[in-house]
Amino acid sequence: MAAKATMADIAKQLGISRAAVSYALNAQPGVAADTREAVLKLATDLGWHPSASARALTGSDIKVIGLALSRPTDTFAVDSFFFEFLAGVESVLVERGWSLLLRVIGDLPEVEIETYRRWWGEGRIDGVILVDERHRDERIAAVEEIGLPAVLCGGPRKGIELPCVWTDQAGDAALIVEHLSGLGHRRIAHVSGPRDFVHERGRQRGVRTAAARHGISVTTIEGTYAPGDARAAVDQLMSEPDPPTAFIFSNDHMSVAGLQQLRALGKSVPTEVSVVSWDDSPLTQAVEPQLTALFRDNQAYGRQAAEALLGLVAGQHPSLVAVARSQLRERSSSGPIG
Amino acid sequence: MAAKATMADIAKQLGISRAAVSYALNAQPGVAADTREAVLKLATDLGWHPSASARALTGSDIKVIGLALSRPTDTFAVDSFFFEFLAGVESVLVERGWSLLLRVIGDLPEVEIETYRRWWGEGRIDGVILVDERHRDERIAAVEEIGLPAVLCGGPRKGIELPCVWTDQAGDAALIVEHLSGLGHRRIAHVSGPRDFVHERGRQRGVRTAAARHGISVTTIEGTYAPGDARAAVDQLMSEPDPPTAFIFSNDHMSVAGLQQLRALGKSVPTEVSVVSWDDSPLTQAVEPQLTALFRDNQAYGRQAAEALLGLVAGQHPSLVAVARSQLRERSSSGPIG
Repeated sequence: MAAKATMADIAKQLGISRAAVSYALNAQPGVAADTREAVLKLATDLGWHPSASARALTGSDIKVIGLALSRPTDTFAVDSFFFEFLAGVESVLVERGWSLLLRVIGDLPEVEIETYRRWWGEGRIDGVILVDERHRDERIAAVEEIGLPAVLCGGPRKGIELPCVWTDQAGDAALIVEHLSGLGHRRIAHVSGPRDFVHERGRQRGVRTAAARHGISVTTIEGTYAPGDARAAVDQLMSEPDPPTAFIFSNDHMSVAGLQQLRALGKSVPTEVSVVSWDDSPLTQAVEPQLTALFRDNQAYGRQAAEALLGLVAGQHPSLVAVARSQLRERSSSGPIG
Repeated sequence: MAAKATMADIAKQLGISRAAVSYALNAQPGVAADTREAVLKLATDLGWHPSASARALTGSDIKVIGLALSRPTDTFAVDSFFFEFLAGVESVLVERGWSLLLRVIGDLPEVEIETYRRWWGEGRIDGVILVDERHRDERIAAVEEIGLPAVLCGGPRKGIELPCVWTDQAGDAALIVEHLSGLGHRRIAHVSGPRDFVHERGRQRGVRTAAARHGISVTTIEGTYAPGDARAAVDQLMSEPDPPTAFIFSNDHMSVAGLQQLRALGKSVPTEVSVVSWDDSPLTQAVEPQLTALFRDNQAYGRQAAEALLGLVAGQHPSLVAVARSQLRERSSSGPIG
């Protein structure tokens, strides 16, 4: 039950103003002793937990966005996407004096939902940004049921009512595949991240669709974003009879590891094999040859998500916000087929 | 005035138990109406702000650590130290179900102090971790005055009563300088971060002290951690009559940029010039040659800081916690003087 609804319920049942209920629940003077007692009794009967009144206490001055991550902390430390996204979120909050309540949870989405319920019930947050959209994501229905203002980084799809800040994965896939097609590649490999992430499903589908348009065959291997997965994929595919002539890796760390593994196998990049990174970062320019990479403006993504949520909290109705268009930065790791 | 002191004050003045005061202030049943009124009246007279009771309201169930950063958001996005540190903090919080309240502030330490005061007064946090210790840091006296449990990542020094989680900058400097001395270097350059950070002062001093012990001359240049500063320092020093034969850069991004600039000037690394990074990260191993780097266990640092603060909040008295010893990882960017 949302705190606001309960406060209104109490006022209605006792025939007093909401302000009087608020004074009583918030331990403020300005309400008669018998009214205060009546409010407290009814509140207790209704299952009002003392801590729930904190929301009313801090009132409109909460100014906190919640962000929970159902991931292990070790993947979190090396995810340049997330930190750029967070910097973008903070760049909006810093201007308005808002804070971010961050909780990293292991791989336990149900604990994430429980966290939102508690944060909202205890008046700790004004709303949440949902990141890492999962296949059959239970958080979407949960925040709607809780009545918690939320913006989804993902979607849009039929049945999702939340405002969505979304990336055109199919468009991004087409940028990469068309680049490789133009260089003459006809057999490519895509080492993706976990398919449990909706955006990775979108990337896999996007690559296959764009490749089919250009008569290119695709081998898809699901990875976990870890460098070891890239090395294993390179070892496996390069030992096959008709190995791919180009690799797409779904993040910067896999791209660097994949490049190094190709060179360890004696393959020249890009003369024999091309590599494209589905993420740009300082890493992609530190390696030799520098990696052709899809630049996504992750800070802008974070800014757009924060602005959408602040708008929602302020009573506006943002619906679909498309993230700034990605760009393919052509560097030295991709070239014409030899 | 700290919430706890006030609650005790009220109890004493009225001659009632602290529990009764807590019930009254927290809008809980279990205390007579006249006592409740007396508590509220005295609390109001004592300047007790309603929002301050939120702390008591949520009681021991706040479970939030505060962390404010007085930095621009753009430096934040590329600071691998901070994200590893944060991952370490989160790895402790995840086990206990705690959250982190994060606020990034521009370069405004006074707003940082105001933030702590508000967070604590409004019952949003149990304590704070102070990072980025500055020269003449005003936050140290401020958190003591506020009565806010705090752990300082920095110190220890005379006059600091807070528990300190500290890194031996002099020891780290000695590791790097002794490595270069052993390779025969007699003229080295240290491109540091901003001297406003106490740890960068400690590094500058540590390098000069260790160098003096070995008869090595040092040129110190203050940078901002940005790659451009490393390139400018390389350009400047390599055009002098007796250029250094080795560079130490205070972070990974400057080290990579410095290495690339040396090569752009036609210098061979390490045959003509050696490079050492005062920070290890995936970047230092992506470049060719891979960088000799000081590995500091930043995740352990974050874990130790979080554990010290949770201990303090639980009533323990951690005092000085030394961060896990750094290691020099010798790779291909440093070698004997040619």
